[in-house]
Amino acid sequence: MRVMGIDCGSEYTGFGVVEQQQNGSLHCLALGAVRLSTREPLEIRLRRIFQELSRVMAEHQPEVAAIEDVFHAANAKSALRLGHVRGVAMLAAAEAGLPVVAYAPLAVKLAVVGYGRAEKSQVQMMVTRLLQLAVAPEPPDVADALAIAICHIHTATTLARQAVAPQN
Amino acid sequence: MRVMGIDCGSEYTGFGVVEQQQNGSLHCLALGAVRLSTREPLEIRLRRIFQELSRVMAEHQPEVAAIEDVFHAANAKSALRLGHVRGVAMLAAAEAGLPVVAYAPLAVKLAVVGYGRAEKSQVQMMVTRLLQLAVAPEPPDVADALAIAICHIHTATTLARQAVAPQN
Repeated sequence: MRVMGIDCGSEYTGFGVVEQQQNGSLHCLALGAVRLSTREPLEIRLRRIFQELSRVMAEHQPEVAAIEDVFHAANAKSALRLGHVRGVAMLAAAEAGLPVVAYAPLAVKLAVVGYGRAEKSQVQMMVTRLLQLAVAPEPPDVADALAIAICHIHTATTLARQAVAPQN
Repeated sequence: MRVMGIDCGSEYTGFGVVEQQQNGSLHCLALGAVRLSTREPLEIRLRRIFQELSRVMAEHQPEVAAIEDVFHAANAKSALRLGHVRGVAMLAAAEAGLPVVAYAPLAVKLAVVGYGRAEKSQVQMMVTRLLQLAVAPEPPDVADALAIAICHIHTATTLARQAVAPQN
């Protein structure tokens, strides 16, 4: 299974492609972030995100894109800003023919750290360990994106196990 | 001058292409709306908006895309939803090489009706008259999109007049 996690943010949009191999081990195929220079018009920044995400999707051919559900935006203004980026990320997936799945931030932290209220640094540390990366992904948005991908792999694996388990 | 107005909404996204002719009269080249069926996944709905807006831009070659500024979203949830559509609309413009300009809802109503607190029905009526349409554009989101385009034409025309006026 190959999953692209995308962490939409107002400053950085992080992304990471994670593959689960036959033996169950996780492997990071790509990771990075698009920084949004505020000096450029918003439509040009959105285009940059769209093109970079589309490029990574074309290069690494994930089967699904995983993003975060948004429940608690700080306010309407920041929700609107986040919505712009999130809409463009979902569009990139749709244009690449990928379904989009969304996970609550709590579910993502639970899947990766085992604790729903984990700090960003704990997510970074666990992602680094699980993917056997040489260094912790920076900025934290990249680690978050990888964590979302790992969350989907865990969830899908669990669902698949339940599906083949004998029904009592 | 040829302008595409886009009114982003959570149910309908309206659009309209307006041209100002040499004699100053306004002419509607295209108008329509994309309805967002809630039965489809969000990324598919966003793709439908992107493709339709891109198709209209390619067919009618506007020089600029005009949208509404958002100041007062009802709440963070509706702001996020609006942001998804707005991000995709801006991306369509950027991909077509169009600059994006944004106008406050008050400025749009003022430009078209002459009154910043005008009702939707008044905007529909004035747009119908200004563009000499046979029937009022429906749903109101289409009239709003045309009103945004007209607002940009009025603003740009006024700015151009000021630029050529003798400086005192």
